Amino acid sequence: MPGISKKGLQMPASPIRKLVPYAEEAKKRGTHVIHLNIGQPDIKTPKIALEAVRNHTIEVLAYSMTEGSEQYREKIAAYYSKNSINVSSKDIIVTTGGSEALSFVMGTIMDSEDEIIIPEPFYANYNGFATASGVNVVPIASSIESNFALPPIADFEKLITTKTKAILICNPGNPTGYLYSKEEIKQLANLVKKHNLFLVADEVYREFTYEGREHYSILQEPGLEEHAIVVDSVSKRYSMCGARIGCLVSKNRDVIQTAMKFAQARLSPPTFAQIASEAALETPQRYFDDVIKEYVERRNILVSELQKLEGVKIAIPQGAFYCVVELPVSNSDDFAQWLLEKFEVNGNTVMVAPAAGFYATKGLGENQIRIAYVLEKEQLVKAVQILGEALKKYRDK
Amino acid sequence: MPGISKKGLQMPASPIRKLVPYAEEAKKRGTHVIHLNIGQPDIKTPKIALEAVRNHTIEVLAYSMTEGSEQYREKIAAYYSKNSINVSSKDIIVTTGGSEALSFVMGTIMDSEDEIIIPEPFYANYNGFATASGVNVVPIASSIESNFALPPIADFEKLITTKTKAILICNPGNPTGYLYSKEEIKQLANLVKKHNLFLVADEVYREFTYEGREHYSILQEPGLEEHAIVVDSVSKRYSMCGARIGCLVSKNRDVIQTAMKFAQARLSPPTFAQIASEAALETPQRYFDDVIKEYVERRNILVSELQKLEGVKIAIPQGAFYCVVELPVSNSDDFAQWLLEKFEVNGNTVMVAPAAGFYATKGLGENQIRIAYVLEKEQLVKAVQILGEALKKYRDK
Repeated sequence: MPGISKKGLQMPASPIRKLVPYAEEAKKRGTHVIHLNIGQPDIKTPKIALEAVRNHTIEVLAYSMTEGSEQYREKIAAYYSKNSINVSSKDIIVTTGGSEALSFVMGTIMDSEDEIIIPEPFYANYNGFATASGVNVVPIASSIESNFALPPIADFEKLITTKTKAILICNPGNPTGYLYSKEEIKQLANLVKKHNLFLVADEVYREFTYEGREHYSILQEPGLEEHAIVVDSVSKRYSMCGARIGCLVSKNRDVIQTAMKFAQARLSPPTFAQIASEAALETPQRYFDDVIKEYVERRNILVSELQKLEGVKIAIPQGAFYCVVELPVSNSDDFAQWLLEKFEVNGNTVMVAPAAGFYATKGLGENQIRIAYVLEKEQLVKAVQILGEALKKYRDK
Repeated sequence: MPGISKKGLQMPASPIRKLVPYAEEAKKRGTHVIHLNIGQPDIKTPKIALEAVRNHTIEVLAYSMTEGSEQYREKIAAYYSKNSINVSSKDIIVTTGGSEALSFVMGTIMDSEDEIIIPEPFYANYNGFATASGVNVVPIASSIESNFALPPIADFEKLITTKTKAILICNPGNPTGYLYSKEEIKQLANLVKKHNLFLVADEVYREFTYEGREHYSILQEPGLEEHAIVVDSVSKRYSMCGARIGCLVSKNRDVIQTAMKFAQARLSPPTFAQIASEAALETPQRYFDDVIKEYVERRNILVSELQKLEGVKIAIPQGAFYCVVELPVSNSDDFAQWLLEKFEVNGNTVMVAPAAGFYATKGLGENQIRIAYVLEKEQLVKAVQILGEALKKYRDK
C-alpha cells in the first residue's frame, strides 16, 4: 500500500477535534453539553447579506474574477478607508476565507524550512498552514500574567535567523483576546524594518474591541507599506463563517502579484459567498454597536463569574471573543476529556478547548483552557457554575 | 524590501493570462473577440440548484462540517453508485472546487521534491498546485497522432524513480478531450500496483463522453482500492464553476484521514455552494442528455470546419469539451497574440489558448492550440472561418 507523505503525518489534528467523540458520547448518554470550545458565533448574520443571496438572478453560475470582482474589492477598499486604512482595490485579493489568505501568504513569502515567528498562544490552524507549506513556526511565549501582551522586542531578536522571513500576529488575538497597542505595533514595525522581514497581521477580529479601545492596523503604520500583509475575513465580522470569504491586503506589489499566481491556480473564490459578503458591507453601524455591546456584557459576566472560582487566573480580553483561563489542574486535556466522559450537574456538562493546542512549545499552556464567549449570558453563567463544581470534584477524584 | 519566496517566483502564471491585456486592447479598439480560450461553459446551471439557494432559510451562516455535510456526502455516494462506482460517504471529503481536492491530494501523498508523473499535455494548473506543494511534475508525452492516447507503459516505467509517488491522469482529458479506455485504466492499475504508487484521476468531465462511449473510473477497477484517489467537481457537470465545490474520493483510509487534517486547517467548504451542489444532484437526466447532444453537435461542427483548413491537424475529442489543434505555425503563442493585436475580419477576431502552456516539456506543443467548444454553433463556425483567414494572412506576413 503506498504511503502518506511525511508532511501529511506531521499535519496537526485540530486540538478540539480529539474531544469530539467524547462530546458525542456524552450527548448519546443524554447529557447536555454547553459548548465553550468553538468560535462559531450565535449572532445572527446581517439580513442584508442573506437576502442578497436569496435575491440572486444568476442563470450561469460562472467563475468570478480570480482576485474577486472589481466592484467588491472597491467596496472593501472603501470599508478600510472608513477605518483609517488607506488601500485601493488593487491591493486586495479576495480569498476563500482568511484561511486561504494565510495559505497564499505562506507560499508567497516563504520556502520550505523558512521560519515565521509567532507569539504563542496562537490560532492553532497557523500550524496546519505552516506544515502544509513546509514552513517552520518559531514560537515566542507571551504570558497570561501580562494578559498576553507583546513579548519584549529583545526576545524576538534572539530568535531571528537567516531563515526568518516574517512575524505573524493575530490582533485582536485568538485565543488571547489581547489587543496590541499602537506602541506595540510600532515596536514590531521597527523590528521588521531593521531585519527586512514581513509583518503579517491576522486582523479578522478588528471590529471587536471593547471599552472604546481603538484597533491600530499594521496598514496604518507609516513606512511599513512594503512589509505589511493583512489577512482578513467576513467570518466573524458579520457572523458568516460559512460564507468562506476573506482577503489578503498589501501595498507590496510583489506580494500581490505573486499571491495572484497562487490564486489563479484555484481559479476563483465562491460566487454566492461574494454576493453575501458584498452586501454585508452595507450592514448598518447599529448592528456592530449591538453585537459589541452583547460581547462586552458576555465578557464581563464571564470574567466576574470565573473570578469567583478558587485558583483560577484570567487574561481579561480587550477584543475578539475568546478568553484564556488558567485552571488549578495540571493537564487541561485530561480535565476537558473528564468533563465530557465522567462529569455532569443535573444532566449538564461543558466542553472547553484545552490551551496546549494553541502553543507550539511543548509543556506550555497545559493548565490553561480557551473559552469562546459566543453563547447567551445565562448559558455562560451556567457553564461557569458547572466548571466550578467540576474543578472541586476533579481535584478530589 | 523583504523578498518573495523561490516558490512564489517559480509559480507559473496562467498560460492564457498573458494574452488577456491584448484581448482587452482589442476590445477597446472595438474589435469583437470570440473566446475559444476558456472552459467556462455557456450552458445554463440547472434551475433546481439556483432555486435551492434562492430559497435558503439560513439565519446564522455557520461553518459547515469540515468534510461536508453527512447528507450531501451520502447523496454524492448515491450518485457514484448510480454510475457503477461503489463508495460510501466516509470515502468522500467535500472540497472548495476540484482545485482544493488537488491541493489536499498533493499534500497528503507527497513531500517536497517528490515526483508525480503526468501525461502531457495536461491541465496547466496541475503545475501550480505542484509548485505550491514543492512537488516535481515529471511529464510523459502523449501525441496528437494517436488522439493523445495513453503513452506506452514501458515509457512510464522508464520515468519511475524512488521519488515517484503517483501518476495523475485527467479522464476525459483537458485539454486533449481523450477518454481513456477500460484497457488503458487497467494497464495503469497494474503499473501503480507493481510500483506501489498512487493513481490520481481528475474525473471532473466524467459526464461528457460522446457516441455512447462509457467512462471507466479508476474507482471501478477491482483491487485498486488502496491506490485510487479521484478528484471531482460540480463545476463543469452542472455548469456551476462559480460554486467552488468539488470532492476528493478514496477507499484508502489513510488518505482520507490525512486529507481531513488539511481540510480541518481551512475549517469548511462554502455553505451556499453546498446547498446548490446538493440540489444539483436532483438534476433530471434530460438535462445531461440535452447538454451532451449540444456538445456533440458543437464538436462535430468544430471538427468538420477545422478539417477544411489547410495544414491543420485535429485530435478528435471523445469527451470533455476541449480540442487540441495543430496549426501550420511555428509558434502559437505568437500567433495567438497576433490574432488579438494585428488581425480582424469585419471587426471580429478570435482568442485561442496556446498549447505550450499545457506541456511541461519545453518545446512541445508550440504549434498547437486548445479550443474550448463552449460557444454556440454559429459562433464556432464563424470563429473557425476567422481562424482560417488568419492562418493565410499570418503565413504571408
